[in-house]
Amino acid sequence: MQANNYALEDPIVAIATALNTSALGIIRTSGKGCIELASKIFSSPKRLQKAEGNTIVHGWIIDPKTNKKIDEVVACVYRTPKSFTGEDSVEFICHGGVAIVLAIYRLLIENGFRTAEGGEFSFRAFANGKNDLSQSEAIKEIIDSKTDTAAELAVGRLSGSVFNEINRIKDIILNAIAAIDVQIEYPEDEETNQGSFSNELILKALEPLQVLRDSWASEKIFIQGAKLVLAGQTNAGKSSLFNALLKEDRAIVSDIHGTTRDYLEAQLSFNGIPVSLYDTAGIRSTKDSIEEIGVKRSIQMSKEADLVFYLLDSVEIVKNKALNKKDRELINEIKTTYIIVCTKHDLLKDEEKKELQNILEETKIKDSILVSSKSAFGIKDLSLKAYDKLTENTGTRKTENGVALGSERQKDGCTKAITALNNAMQNAEAGFPLDMLVEDLEEAVMHLGEITGEVKSDDILEKLFSGFCVGK
Amino acid sequence: MQANNYALEDPIVAIATALNTSALGIIRTSGKGCIELASKIFSSPKRLQKAEGNTIVHGWIIDPKTNKKIDEVVACVYRTPKSFTGEDSVEFICHGGVAIVLAIYRLLIENGFRTAEGGEFSFRAFANGKNDLSQSEAIKEIIDSKTDTAAELAVGRLSGSVFNEINRIKDIILNAIAAIDVQIEYPEDEETNQGSFSNELILKALEPLQVLRDSWASEKIFIQGAKLVLAGQTNAGKSSLFNALLKEDRAIVSDIHGTTRDYLEAQLSFNGIPVSLYDTAGIRSTKDSIEEIGVKRSIQMSKEADLVFYLLDSVEIVKNKALNKKDRELINEIKTTYIIVCTKHDLLKDEEKKELQNILEETKIKDSILVSSKSAFGIKDLSLKAYDKLTENTGTRKTENGVALGSERQKDGCTKAITALNNAMQNAEAGFPLDMLVEDLEEAVMHLGEITGEVKSDDILEKLFSGFCVGK
Repeated sequence: MQANNYALEDPIVAIATALNTSALGIIRTSGKGCIELASKIFSSPKRLQKAEGNTIVHGWIIDPKTNKKIDEVVACVYRTPKSFTGEDSVEFICHGGVAIVLAIYRLLIENGFRTAEGGEFSFRAFANGKNDLSQSEAIKEIIDSKTDTAAELAVGRLSGSVFNEINRIKDIILNAIAAIDVQIEYPEDEETNQGSFSNELILKALEPLQVLRDSWASEKIFIQGAKLVLAGQTNAGKSSLFNALLKEDRAIVSDIHGTTRDYLEAQLSFNGIPVSLYDTAGIRSTKDSIEEIGVKRSIQMSKEADLVFYLLDSVEIVKNKALNKKDRELINEIKTTYIIVCTKHDLLKDEEKKELQNILEETKIKDSILVSSKSAFGIKDLSLKAYDKLTENTGTRKTENGVALGSERQKDGCTKAITALNNAMQNAEAGFPLDMLVEDLEEAVMHLGEITGEVKSDDILEKLFSGFCVGK
Repeated sequence: MQANNYALEDPIVAIATALNTSALGIIRTSGKGCIELASKIFSSPKRLQKAEGNTIVHGWIIDPKTNKKIDEVVACVYRTPKSFTGEDSVEFICHGGVAIVLAIYRLLIENGFRTAEGGEFSFRAFANGKNDLSQSEAIKEIIDSKTDTAAELAVGRLSGSVFNEINRIKDIILNAIAAIDVQIEYPEDEETNQGSFSNELILKALEPLQVLRDSWASEKIFIQGAKLVLAGQTNAGKSSLFNALLKEDRAIVSDIHGTTRDYLEAQLSFNGIPVSLYDTAGIRSTKDSIEEIGVKRSIQMSKEADLVFYLLDSVEIVKNKALNKKDRELINEIKTTYIIVCTKHDLLKDEEKKELQNILEETKIKDSILVSSKSAFGIKDLSLKAYDKLTENTGTRKTENGVALGSERQKDGCTKAITALNNAMQNAEAGFPLDMLVEDLEEAVMHLGEITGEVKSDDILEKLFSGFCVGK
């Protein structure tokens, strides 16, 4: 699928809802003549054809070959330009049975519609000026968001916050170019063509652009989520903590029991950060050698993690009056940010808690927390501590208007524009001709235009829209 | 949840699409004042409030507490009585992200909507005379249908085929009652009150009613599906056949790898019959004793099956020039309809195929088929044979108009009405007073009324609607 190969305007169809037994389903169509085409399988073709935009027509889907009724539906009719894509569009809301949704979808294909590529509806919305690229990306973000916070951040971008901020910065640069053009046209020093142009004008664009670029660091974690691995020896209580974390968190999206993948995975939310939690304790170990492999694997997995909870059995530590040698070795092996989690708080007397604290201090372990998966003691604090750890290096940088970027692509565009602005300033300071400055500034404007899609690059379009789910 | 406890009219809300990442999602509301309530979280409340029925209003969901945008949506507005429920209704079509759909749903609950019970929308449609009970059941059927055929059969009922046939039969009985009433009012023999009433009038109702009742036998299998178990010893090729059947069938809905349940399950379609295929070969057997358990379990499962494929290793049979003693024992244990499937056709020479045939005939095995899971030889024939086996005892009985019942409940209603009609005829023959006949006939009319819901029984309503998914 290539974005630049999307044929515009031809009638396309896609199933827009999840294909699973449910009350309702939506089959979405768009394109030139799509209302006429859709009417071929509709019980009241004329009413559909004559329907005004933004109206709903009730009727039946009929197979024109057999004249058999397929389902009772409503047809939502949209007319250009007042539709998602900007084109004529019909959305059939049908019953949500898998067989029914597929039957209607196939019938539309038999009657002249083409299967839409992933992202093709959004691409048409972009091509027809309904959305800029940052808004298109926000749609994908909203659909993919796993927590309310992630969705909320994306919605700001859908309403055009990035688009507006980029355009505001672009205008500043265009003003700078205009000022330089005046200098070129009417130079103060006709021989050198060098005017009294000051970098201040460029700085006015550079500063907000840097803030905007840096906003991605904190935004990213809410959009892409974090990977958290539970590590530690077999008796440390990994499974219990896994369950305790799931229980504490009310925003569980799913939990996958990975019997075939040798680990358990669950989705949860730490204060709005979508977290994938991995527990290697799911391995059914019957022999010591397999347990060994389990621990090694958790350490292996922790290398790709954003955060590791390393679990220690508090009772064992107090009993041995020291950390187990193996634990010390394993902790040293962890290269990622980690939190030491001492489990089994419920089994310790107050005295022993103090002892434990002393032993940890002696071992120079920082960032430890004492919890009980059984009583849930410390579990909430653990998730807050995890949130702090995950955000400590990113801050919550945003522009004054609360705008933040929504994708790596947008950040890359900002970075390129910043480089171009820096080049412009260096060239100005080095006393190069003003024409060269204008070139740098125009390059910055171009990169900003790529973010919003004003400047189109097939590469960017292809990469962006091919990541969409079908029906969007 | 009790159907008779459904409060009518109060504003209800439900997520109507499957809660899974997808392009679009629908949140459905219905009830008195629901358009006003919904407008509290809509960016253009007045436009929504003033919207005519069957129109679409574009806007944003806004949290009234924080004034934050939640999502860009369209609101489909329906006004009483032109809506699914017959009440005022708003359906928000939003982006299909799980977090977004849940956020809008919660916001509606915060702003005065109540969570709908399963089936509550359909119940209101019934209560407001939009659907009769047979149509309500057809909606559930359509949603649940696993094959096109099942969906197609249900759609006829949704368009009122059962309703019309029941009413046609009811009218015949009402005519009979009227005729008897005339006899009672103006008796030919004033002393006995016995008129010249002939059973012919009742037979006119009884015959189509019996056809209608019997239609359930063949319809049932398309609606409820069939359970098919692969049985046989470990080396018979159960797993290979399981995969070959999945590959052949293009209507696969899902396959569930049941590592924890000691069997594999897959959904497939034999000529429109939804079939759940079970293979106990999924057990990871390392010791002979466990293999033993596996075979026993497949025989156990086959007791609850509608059809069993008993697999024999053709190569072994030819080599031993006889069926294994164990196989003969196991085949004798099967109580359900079965087909003997001789596997590994690809490993037999032509001569050996004949030998195999002879051995099977000697062992008096009928209904055997030779297949190869590797080359797919015979797989298509096997599924056709299975279709024949599954339908051989049911026929494809339908009324002249092609009407067939859609639920056990409808069949029970028909059976009760038939009993009442039979009683009436016996009483007439026995020369009992005409009043008694009228009572019997009225009872038949009542049972037919229960099928369509004209006669309401809280028990029936509760049982029927509580089986619906939320949002329907």
